[in-house]
Amino acid sequence: MSVRPEHASALSHDELKTRLHTMGREAREASRIMAAAGPAAKANALETLALLLQERREEILAANAEDLAAARDAGLDAPRLDRLTLTDNTLKEMAEACRFVASLPDPVGAMDSQWQRPNGLLVGRMRIPLGVVGMIYEARPNVTVDASILCLKAGNAVLLRGGSEALRSNLALGRLLGESLAKAGLPAAAVQLIDVTDRAAVGILCKMDEFVDVLIPRGGESLVRAVTAQATMPVLKHFMGVCHAFVDEGADLSQALDIVFNSKVQRPGVCNALECLLVHRAEADGFLPMVGEKLGRAGVEFRACPVSLPLLGEKAVPLSKDDLGREFHDLILAVRVVNDLDEALTHIARYGSHHTEVICTRDHVRAMRFLREADASMVGVNASTRFNDGGQLGLGAEIGISTSKLHAYGPMGVRELTTTKFVVFGQGQVRV
Amino acid sequence: MSVRPEHASALSHDELKTRLHTMGREAREASRIMAAAGPAAKANALETLALLLQERREEILAANAEDLAAARDAGLDAPRLDRLTLTDNTLKEMAEACRFVASLPDPVGAMDSQWQRPNGLLVGRMRIPLGVVGMIYEARPNVTVDASILCLKAGNAVLLRGGSEALRSNLALGRLLGESLAKAGLPAAAVQLIDVTDRAAVGILCKMDEFVDVLIPRGGESLVRAVTAQATMPVLKHFMGVCHAFVDEGADLSQALDIVFNSKVQRPGVCNALECLLVHRAEADGFLPMVGEKLGRAGVEFRACPVSLPLLGEKAVPLSKDDLGREFHDLILAVRVVNDLDEALTHIARYGSHHTEVICTRDHVRAMRFLREADASMVGVNASTRFNDGGQLGLGAEIGISTSKLHAYGPMGVRELTTTKFVVFGQGQVRV
Repeated sequence: MSVRPEHASALSHDELKTRLHTMGREAREASRIMAAAGPAAKANALETLALLLQERREEILAANAEDLAAARDAGLDAPRLDRLTLTDNTLKEMAEACRFVASLPDPVGAMDSQWQRPNGLLVGRMRIPLGVVGMIYEARPNVTVDASILCLKAGNAVLLRGGSEALRSNLALGRLLGESLAKAGLPAAAVQLIDVTDRAAVGILCKMDEFVDVLIPRGGESLVRAVTAQATMPVLKHFMGVCHAFVDEGADLSQALDIVFNSKVQRPGVCNALECLLVHRAEADGFLPMVGEKLGRAGVEFRACPVSLPLLGEKAVPLSKDDLGREFHDLILAVRVVNDLDEALTHIARYGSHHTEVICTRDHVRAMRFLREADASMVGVNASTRFNDGGQLGLGAEIGISTSKLHAYGPMGVRELTTTKFVVFGQGQVRV
Repeated sequence: MSVRPEHASALSHDELKTRLHTMGREAREASRIMAAAGPAAKANALETLALLLQERREEILAANAEDLAAARDAGLDAPRLDRLTLTDNTLKEMAEACRFVASLPDPVGAMDSQWQRPNGLLVGRMRIPLGVVGMIYEARPNVTVDASILCLKAGNAVLLRGGSEALRSNLALGRLLGESLAKAGLPAAAVQLIDVTDRAAVGILCKMDEFVDVLIPRGGESLVRAVTAQATMPVLKHFMGVCHAFVDEGADLSQALDIVFNSKVQRPGVCNALECLLVHRAEADGFLPMVGEKLGRAGVEFRACPVSLPLLGEKAVPLSKDDLGREFHDLILAVRVVNDLDEALTHIARYGSHHTEVICTRDHVRAMRFLREADASMVGVNASTRFNDGGQLGLGAEIGISTSKLHAYGPMGVRELTTTKFVVFGQGQVRV
């Protein structure tokens, strides 16, 4: 990683632009070398990084402590301080992620499929890197490593624009990334950290389509919307997760209860947590008191439709219109009783955010209809919403979850950081 | 297809917007029905359309004759008149395309791959439609049918905005599309023709991200750039084709000559035609006089580097800087002698447009390096550049050739009008 040491708050807009364009040009050049790099060099860099994350943990934790002290002085709230914090354990997990990504098959150069044409041409789709990836993210220093190692494995160069609160931590991690690349004979410019804390840097980056093939914003909705509105290159974006579970007539209610509990309670602040429970009318009387009891005991508050309100116990308040299609990010659950699968699917089409939808059912036909018709990046039968995650689905690490359909829909892992080109093996064929 | 009969030149901007938003809303609703439609209904609509294109050809040709008369009065040039013209033969080809697309396997609902997780979850990627496609194209009425049948097969709804010169032809084709959908029990709003000739319609369509999942502009570079600059949804775009052929040291020169001739001469006005020939220094003396003779006889003019200039005969003039990275769309070929494969690859990285690049070689190592390192949507060995085409590569009909890497890179057929979602089959799993 090439880190530019001078801080840049004193730069004029033109100077800032020149500086970012230089980084972009170097990233573009590095991306050509990365695309041609063999699997061994990339795995070598990842394994070196895993070692350095352990050997040099004092250095990283010291930088992180400085970030944390400054953030406390600036009055950051507890959840944001939590996301900023690195520990021995998070560094260990980062090192494990490096080793895991190193162990994945190298996607680049693989032929997805090949077929022969009547004229003897052998045609195939070869997997190739995207080129230069721009990551724009908030105060989570672990994204610096996650994004870098996935981009590196996929043969891309990456420009990283992290949150200013995490700058010292990111610079420390960046040094290790740079050393790892150099040791493997790979170009330092393949991973570059934009250390300019000026917000104008994001606006400039969004217009650098000459140097950046795709932008990936990772953070709150306002960040994602701002990047999408400004960007002149494709954006892989992750909006809200308004996830539903539908408990069908005849479902195994005890299993459904475990699924609903896990989906809502295990980690309520994340995008694949349950926000709205839909229950078939035939099961309402039997199921909702169980939900009221078990989730209520865990501190869940219910926003309940008129039918479910009397069945959920004392933690239930009437549902308002604003509670539908909403990400609570908290121990709050909207609950609605529906007449049938059709009404559930219509509700999901109207209020869902194309993130995660699950059905609890024992009926095969309705299970398959739900899988086919619910429009979300992950649709599940008899499983928690919390499985919509790259690691849980078996993709390895992820760089975000796409809720728009172009290029990637769902968790984006190494494969989603590549594309395919057509390769044609001929013996002199011409078109007639 | 639902065609709105009143012409709309008298509409205010707000009325126009309301009207397009209504069409968008109806397309969104129709897309839900199309996504759930089975293969038989879609194939049925396509086969009915094939029949109608034959039975009702008088009606279409009469409408096309009116368009042509108006275009002649308006002084359209010969190539544009040519693109606007429908004949018995083009209608026959359209009908064949319908039958061919009907015969392709239905992509929707197919599971691309499936794997089991250690906790017993069965995870798969299910192929699904993109949703609503917006096509913006110029005066080629055949695109109305090509785009509609591909979108229909892929389970999408489509909003079509064709050129105003082709409006009568498009309306006539639209009637047949509407009848075919209705006969198959599919919603008419799945294919809607925007008959508003006002240019403001394109600007409004570009902002309708609530209703349109992807825009596909098909036409000249200025149209593509205007749509890309304005669109708030992803755009699948097809820019220039600046295609190169590199004739390597030791290539089969007679075969290379056929490939270069076919690539340049067979149809010089299209995007996969050859624009620049790169020749290894060791073959220049032997190969370039053959090129000068054979292509010169076919009327090709050469823009030649200093080394190639004396070898190409009297049709050669000196190469200027502007001749590199340029789409001539004509019987003109830039020619440059290079020292080796590296110099050829560097030239292509600098001047290529990520469309089509080919190498003529007998050396296996250099062939594989070229395939891997030339960055284009199709890279070929010992084959004409003219093969970068959906039909030629075996994808069936195509809706355009993408030269940007996100989602699709190369010819876009039925598969590229779909995406995948994750589907999860559980037996009560929760996340621990």
